Amino acid sequence: MKKNDSITPREEDFAKWYSEICLKAELMDYTKVKGFIVYRPYGYAIWENIQKWLDGEFKKTGHENVYLPCLIPESLMKKEADHINGFAPECAVVTEGGGKELDEKLYIRPTSETLFCDHFHDILSSYRDLPIKYNQWCSVVRWEKTTRPFLRGSEFLWQEGHTLHRTEAEAREEALKMLNVYNRLGKEVLAIPFVCGRKTEREKFAGAEETYSIEALMPDGQALQSGTSHYFGQGFAKHFDISFLDDDNVLKTPYQTSFGVSTRLIGSIIMEHGDDNGLVLPPFVAPIQVVIVPVRPGDDPAVMNVSKHIKELCEAEGLRVKLDDSDKTPGWKYAQYEMKGVPLRIDVGPRDLKEGNVGYAIRYNGEKGAWANDETIGKKAKDLMEDITKGMYKKANDYLLSHIVEVHTWDELADVINNHKGYAKMMWCGDEACEIKIKQELNATSRCIPFDQVPFMDTDPVCGKKAKYVVYFARAY
Amino acid sequence: MKKNDSITPREEDFAKWYSEICLKAELMDYTKVKGFIVYRPYGYAIWENIQKWLDGEFKKTGHENVYLPCLIPESLMKKEADHINGFAPECAVVTEGGGKELDEKLYIRPTSETLFCDHFHDILSSYRDLPIKYNQWCSVVRWEKTTRPFLRGSEFLWQEGHTLHRTEAEAREEALKMLNVYNRLGKEVLAIPFVCGRKTEREKFAGAEETYSIEALMPDGQALQSGTSHYFGQGFAKHFDISFLDDDNVLKTPYQTSFGVSTRLIGSIIMEHGDDNGLVLPPFVAPIQVVIVPVRPGDDPAVMNVSKHIKELCEAEGLRVKLDDSDKTPGWKYAQYEMKGVPLRIDVGPRDLKEGNVGYAIRYNGEKGAWANDETIGKKAKDLMEDITKGMYKKANDYLLSHIVEVHTWDELADVINNHKGYAKMMWCGDEACEIKIKQELNATSRCIPFDQVPFMDTDPVCGKKAKYVVYFARAY
Repeated sequence: MKKNDSITPREEDFAKWYSEICLKAELMDYTKVKGFIVYRPYGYAIWENIQKWLDGEFKKTGHENVYLPCLIPESLMKKEADHINGFAPECAVVTEGGGKELDEKLYIRPTSETLFCDHFHDILSSYRDLPIKYNQWCSVVRWEKTTRPFLRGSEFLWQEGHTLHRTEAEAREEALKMLNVYNRLGKEVLAIPFVCGRKTEREKFAGAEETYSIEALMPDGQALQSGTSHYFGQGFAKHFDISFLDDDNVLKTPYQTSFGVSTRLIGSIIMEHGDDNGLVLPPFVAPIQVVIVPVRPGDDPAVMNVSKHIKELCEAEGLRVKLDDSDKTPGWKYAQYEMKGVPLRIDVGPRDLKEGNVGYAIRYNGEKGAWANDETIGKKAKDLMEDITKGMYKKANDYLLSHIVEVHTWDELADVINNHKGYAKMMWCGDEACEIKIKQELNATSRCIPFDQVPFMDTDPVCGKKAKYVVYFARAY
Repeated sequence: MKKNDSITPREEDFAKWYSEICLKAELMDYTKVKGFIVYRPYGYAIWENIQKWLDGEFKKTGHENVYLPCLIPESLMKKEADHINGFAPECAVVTEGGGKELDEKLYIRPTSETLFCDHFHDILSSYRDLPIKYNQWCSVVRWEKTTRPFLRGSEFLWQEGHTLHRTEAEAREEALKMLNVYNRLGKEVLAIPFVCGRKTEREKFAGAEETYSIEALMPDGQALQSGTSHYFGQGFAKHFDISFLDDDNVLKTPYQTSFGVSTRLIGSIIMEHGDDNGLVLPPFVAPIQVVIVPVRPGDDPAVMNVSKHIKELCEAEGLRVKLDDSDKTPGWKYAQYEMKGVPLRIDVGPRDLKEGNVGYAIRYNGEKGAWANDETIGKKAKDLMEDITKGMYKKANDYLLSHIVEVHTWDELADVINNHKGYAKMMWCGDEACEIKIKQELNATSRCIPFDQVPFMDTDPVCGKKAKYVVYFARAY
């Protein structure tokens, strides 16, 4: 039996559990248009915390923020054939403006490569202008049939980096460098381990020469692509006539990259860390890092005084703290902040205080204990944030590592995929035919060709041909 | 004669001067769709600095950030009649999505009252939930025939606050409180003085009971509405069926407000402070607050060492600093950073250094001088930021105060408007007919009914009827 305000256990129905957390932790709300959601304050604050970290890293690596229009004229979208073919079917199209039918259709940006290219054409002239390293925070629209909050929406929030370089080597390095920033975001901030590698031809971004990705593994054994970085070569630049005068006085074409992560990361956090009591937030994105719950404050005035002092101690350490002095019961509050995934709870009650203590509870592992009621509590809480992040990462990484399964035969591959055992690590001939067969028969896709290539057999178990690459296959969100 | 890289003087052609600054200071670039611009790094950074200050103030006053969809279904837009009538003619409309014609048209948000109301309907239940104070940073689309960068665009960036309150008094107070935040933004950050007041019936926001505004006065004598705050009463709430159970167990309708400022503020900054050498930025929004120019660094290695040390001293004070060590000439650099409006320049050259000095130049008033080359330079620069802001504000405020002209007759009114003398301060009967006549014959509109009402005659000089209010009339952007 489910308690009134509890949620469906993950084992019972993972998808339902997910949807209930989204609503009960007050992360989002639905709207009248399918696939368009409200990011409520608690959900949006998670995104703001991700933004803050990433924006800092982008600035450290020399990127500047810009803002380009939300609408793209059809003629511009069509300049790069692969790109329009990849995106047109999922675009929202504006055909009326200011009360009149428009002469040319305008697409709401599904991504902004074409706009950036058009702008680069206008502003680039000399090798002295290079590299150009831009980033944009915005929302994009991609019409989706099946939608789920954060994971797949017709509108989502993201950042898209767009850069131009003088040399191929520099552009290739940029694409990998930014993938690594995403990988560090996972490890240091989200406590999510990723499998990193490059996409196969079939799975590449429309218009890219190489697409790199970070792929998380969810507890239901499905992969979740969490960020991508693309090396474009000179393809877009040639179509959009982007060139610069080099120091040898020769007009040359620059090399280009783009990279992005989105609010999908919030979905990734929910599934990766959540449990049957609700959300479990990694400390560095948690809107509330520490919640202080006064217990029976009426019994002893010290309860509220100590609670307030602990709040000050924690705030002095730069923590985001909430002291819940509402008239709800402690039990209600415990359940509420568990649902909301607050990393650390500190309970201040008359009994503990008499012994010179306060209680604490760590959300992700359920650890509870007592601390001496002294001036070191703020520092202790602060230090715990780092420890909790590491602990959550280790837990997730242990799961990931134990769910990468080497497969040597079709049956082993089918077993991993059909029984939700995670990534099937397979030797692959490099031929799209095998990917198509796996997609059709097992509904799984190649997630990436990992950077770390350690071959473990000579043939592709799907077709029997000579194997070229180690590849990860999985069902994916 | 215009120098090669200089701009049209303001006296010669103010509009041309404005457009040239936008491009030459690298604030923006045009795109292929009229009214949609690229916010280049230097322009976008100004907006980010405005955001940072405002977001801090919003948080201090208890507002939370959220994000709602960019598309509004037609049926939702139509729920409040005044609102749809006010906005429909300027909307961009999506009629196709995912390759198919849509069953219902979707409007790209021109503003989000309807979406917020629909969400409030879903989430509000008890008086305990009130007040709800939300803010959203986003872009909006309003189709415009005549467009100018930052001042009037078909897409612009803004924030929109939306709040719900238990009582009328609290909501009315909120609307005025947020107007005051905007007024402080002007005084403390943008160095722009505003005339503040409420709008006439005719000039109110579509659906508001009261609209308050801050109005700047540009050097060409035209007003620029720079921000608005609205008290909605219960109008929207009733149309959208928003209600709460009060502590007396009665279902009641809450009171509502909204408020917003946009990237139009950048246009306001350009016109208010700029001169014939280019942009003049108020320090607290300037992307670069101090530029250090080494002069003949080849003559003396101390030049570069001191330049670097001054950079460190300024950065230690939290200033945004650029050391331009490129191989361009000092003259080119001086012109460049004047064009870009950098508030303070520090010149480090061998001659000054021999005398133990470095040179400085203040952008807004052209003041130049020498400082002892010692450890106090960072602090001096820091202190100057506050002084410069005050100086710029005083200059602008002196202009504003000397361009508010009491008019007693139609001829005096016509003289102020036609000869670009600023605000015509007029006694008004309160009847729309006078506003229409002034609009038709002088192309001016009522800007606001100032809070500070000091009547100076008994009759309205337009119609001769009994006067009710002091009103400001002006031509406006």
